Amino acid sequence: MSFAPLDIAHPYLLFLGDAPDALAAKTARGVAQFRPEWCLGQWRLPDCKADLGLPELDAAAAAALGARTMIVGVANAGGLLPEHWQGALIEALESGMDLASGLHAKLTDLPAVAAAAQRLGRQLHDVRHPRQDYPVGKGRLRSGKRLLTVGTDCSVGKMYTSLALEKELRARGVKADFRATGQTGILIAGCGVSVDAVVADFMSGAIEAITPDNEPDHWDLIEGQGSLFHASYAGVSLALLHGSAPDALVLCHEPKRRHMRGLPHYSLPGLKECAEANLAAARLTNRNVRLVGASLNTSNLEPAERLAALAEAEGELGVPAVDPLVTGAARIVDEL
Amino acid sequence: MSFAPLDIAHPYLLFLGDAPDALAAKTARGVAQFRPEWCLGQWRLPDCKADLGLPELDAAAAAALGARTMIVGVANAGGLLPEHWQGALIEALESGMDLASGLHAKLTDLPAVAAAAQRLGRQLHDVRHPRQDYPVGKGRLRSGKRLLTVGTDCSVGKMYTSLALEKELRARGVKADFRATGQTGILIAGCGVSVDAVVADFMSGAIEAITPDNEPDHWDLIEGQGSLFHASYAGVSLALLHGSAPDALVLCHEPKRRHMRGLPHYSLPGLKECAEANLAAARLTNRNVRLVGASLNTSNLEPAERLAALAEAEGELGVPAVDPLVTGAARIVDEL
Repeated sequence: MSFAPLDIAHPYLLFLGDAPDALAAKTARGVAQFRPEWCLGQWRLPDCKADLGLPELDAAAAAALGARTMIVGVANAGGLLPEHWQGALIEALESGMDLASGLHAKLTDLPAVAAAAQRLGRQLHDVRHPRQDYPVGKGRLRSGKRLLTVGTDCSVGKMYTSLALEKELRARGVKADFRATGQTGILIAGCGVSVDAVVADFMSGAIEAITPDNEPDHWDLIEGQGSLFHASYAGVSLALLHGSAPDALVLCHEPKRRHMRGLPHYSLPGLKECAEANLAAARLTNRNVRLVGASLNTSNLEPAERLAALAEAEGELGVPAVDPLVTGAARIVDEL
Repeated sequence: MSFAPLDIAHPYLLFLGDAPDALAAKTARGVAQFRPEWCLGQWRLPDCKADLGLPELDAAAAAALGARTMIVGVANAGGLLPEHWQGALIEALESGMDLASGLHAKLTDLPAVAAAAQRLGRQLHDVRHPRQDYPVGKGRLRSGKRLLTVGTDCSVGKMYTSLALEKELRARGVKADFRATGQTGILIAGCGVSVDAVVADFMSGAIEAITPDNEPDHWDLIEGQGSLFHASYAGVSLALLHGSAPDALVLCHEPKRRHMRGLPHYSLPGLKECAEANLAAARLTNRNVRLVGASLNTSNLEPAERLAALAEAEGELGVPAVDPLVTGAARIVDEL
């Protein structure tokens, strides 16, 4: 059924279920924002409070328009797949679509859904749960170029920054591919690996597998995870640095973050300290790695504060600082 | 059957199967060396070429002497459990023993063995495959003291060093427990977690779980894994540093190692560089961490070379350097 390498067929129908608010549908919003050309519509159940402004379609209507996968793009309390969604999930399968979900609960653990997929020959993509076996990392430099986003903390804009860089490079005619390492990123890319769900021994090998040899002028834009300074997840971040063997790093940061996410007793590292630690670790597998930019999430700042924060980061790090959603990522791409 | 926290009942019968040579039984040898009081005997099939010098017992004889678990302490090509061992495995279950294995192949995947265990109410411990769910690491300092062994590479003596330190501390009447993080260590300790088989998100949380709050004068001696300088496994090593929140580090090294294990294109880091990188990373969760010793595996050196290597390490690091199997670990314990 779904032991094939993760490769999600598009276009998509975005299933929003009965999302209690807009935030619950943030996975679907990310997909709609970065892959609008793949998103034919949204399917909302009664009481759904999220709205992405896409055409309202049910399974049959979406399939008739050519949708190949329905994305479960909504988070429920506890990451569960509630009983009352099952009818819609099975309807999608029966209409000819595969299913993909970024939730912790697995589609394959729902007996009626799994049976329908089996019977109909459809794929079930539980993108948080790697099904493939990955090799142990080899630390070998590959051809082609690689950029990894790193951060002072979790959830500071590493995925958005990687996608903005891909967009800017492609707009300039440069061969570039976003490489997804988390569930939302995988739904946006249509492939990738949820690296924090991989068995520890194979973390760096999984990253090597999704960033193989490529054309000399091709860029992989690799989505970072966590932070070397996050006590819960730093091991994942280090494996990403080593597996990526990056030529370039972009340091991501949210200026008003008060403490490390989930760890109120930990403060954030300084930008300079964080950049140097990441460069030192990255040199193990690519001695020519360099910092090419900083990316700040300034959505909580006033315009004057934003300019000050960007200028301060540039002064501290000596590289261009951008907020990709406000200023674009062009100044970083100029550095590549 | 075996979803309970890993806790392996002793004493043990060591099953050596038809080990083709002594090296194939190195897991069993480690158990016999560090827990001789738990090892009632060995069970060897015809053609077995390994011999630990223990009494020859079969399942019934060992059970009659009180053995509670039969340890599959032998590696086969590919880490497999060959068909012709199954009779002995089931005989052990029928004699009243649990089974524990450090192989990649799982006891629970052998239908006849799993059925016998179910029927008889016995435990099957596949110690390489964590069955428990672990929480995300919290980075909280716990009461009690912790020492972690770190290394320039994999397989440089981190487990032996941790066990030698436990032995020396206990001999001095200090409360001390070896905390196992790999399969041989788990069979020696009777509990622990195979950290490189844990899902990435939960690595540091698993280490926190096996080193909980303890009495203020109690020492955990935590078995390290890999190396911060090993391109395949450094993420696991970093999670161990953060999850351990160690008060003390001991740096392990093998002087004649030519390149990183499994990575012929990578040379080993210098002792000083390696110590400093480990201390810097460890400070995130315990700012008072210090290096208390170096442990060299000098088994390949002539006596004169050994003395020179130990003196050189002491000079470079400014802490006592020992080979625990030759000089003992007393000089490191003096530092604690």
